[in-house]
Amino acid sequence: MTRHALEALSRADVVLLDHLAPHQDLPRWAPKAEIIDVGKTPGKHRVPQRDIDQLMVQYAQAGRTVARLKGGDPYVFGRGAEELYVCEQAGIPVTVYSGVTSSIALPALAGVPITLRGVSHMFTVVSGHAPLSGSELDQLAGLLKDGGTVSLLMGVKSLPHTVAGLRKRGVPESLPMIAVQDGFRPKQREIYATLDDCLETLADVKPPAVITLGEVCAVAGPRRDEVMARAFETH
Amino acid sequence: MTRHALEALSRADVVLLDHLAPHQDLPRWAPKAEIIDVGKTPGKHRVPQRDIDQLMVQYAQAGRTVARLKGGDPYVFGRGAEELYVCEQAGIPVTVYSGVTSSIALPALAGVPITLRGVSHMFTVVSGHAPLSGSELDQLAGLLKDGGTVSLLMGVKSLPHTVAGLRKRGVPESLPMIAVQDGFRPKQREIYATLDDCLETLADVKPPAVITLGEVCAVAGPRRDEVMARAFETH
Repeated sequence: MTRHALEALSRADVVLLDHLAPHQDLPRWAPKAEIIDVGKTPGKHRVPQRDIDQLMVQYAQAGRTVARLKGGDPYVFGRGAEELYVCEQAGIPVTVYSGVTSSIALPALAGVPITLRGVSHMFTVVSGHAPLSGSELDQLAGLLKDGGTVSLLMGVKSLPHTVAGLRKRGVPESLPMIAVQDGFRPKQREIYATLDDCLETLADVKPPAVITLGEVCAVAGPRRDEVMARAFETH
Repeated sequence: MTRHALEALSRADVVLLDHLAPHQDLPRWAPKAEIIDVGKTPGKHRVPQRDIDQLMVQYAQAGRTVARLKGGDPYVFGRGAEELYVCEQAGIPVTVYSGVTSSIALPALAGVPITLRGVSHMFTVVSGHAPLSGSELDQLAGLLKDGGTVSLLMGVKSLPHTVAGLRKRGVPESLPMIAVQDGFRPKQREIYATLDDCLETLADVKPPAVITLGEVCAVAGPRRDEVMARAFETH
């Protein structure tokens, strides 16, 4: 949560809260706000998007200051642009505050830097909500073989499809991976795997989770010192 | 700046400050800290990395609580992992707080969402500090032709090289781009361009800047309504 988001919450009359948004101290952060939970649990939409849009607009048009609180960054698979557009069409002024994206912060919880000198100077973030297409798998396989990092959001359910696609495209079985489940929550877990063993090792990982793939994940495994040495060689 | 970072600053005895780190209210955020500016202006290293490492370790070993304050996210081309490792080797406990990365937040300042349903469900962040290699250009051209978004950090100086490489690989001249210079600062500028005209349109852009490429950047240009309509079709 950024200080700009906190400042906006402190002024809010209404908070429309998403499932994965930080909310442990919400009554203190937004002391004068009516809090409406419009969150969605994975695979199960609680409040339809159309209704969320309507709530935002109706409350704002009634003269109330509305905070729309999302987890992560609103523009990373968060429908932020669509909600902004709906408000814009209704003539409602909106300020967007970027957030800390789980695609970077969750591997970081496991000690994995999304970039590392001499190892990875490119990273890609992709949604596995729908199974990855052949052309997406082509891109990701190329990036991974080139030393890049891939962070897969909402990718637990489609992981077998993703793994099969990467194997077929020649990504090495030794490719290291890290899965971080329930990041920043009491049940947080970090599990190290390789492409070779991941369907077994990560079999009991449940959403919400971020799965990060790429040579840089080796810093969380037995090759840590070797990989870090490469970063220092290029200083 | 996140509330976790603010909380850490409030406890700090020493702050080692980077050039691009937010610092406008630092005396208030870190009221009891000695503030040491070890920042680097682009292309000109003020304090060598080795000296920064040594300062962190020396202050910590002298019993002081050290905050290492960076701009953006410490793991996105920020040497965060290397600095963590140096402390780890010296037996100093470290907590890393992820930040808001400029690769997402700067295009957002120009109204560009890094992902958008029906338009872009993959984005790649790359450093243009060194000119991109042929294989990196291959990857990026593939991603862009597939509708993905690319955020190029430290890529102003090498932009002519990047543009030539993307053209050679068949990226369409109509590809929209947005450059955001001096993001979150008084002199902030946002400039819309296409691959076709960008070497002229962006000729006077100076670091620090993030250059974002991809179909999604059209939301900041004349095709805004058309591109947003695609997002709503896929709802």
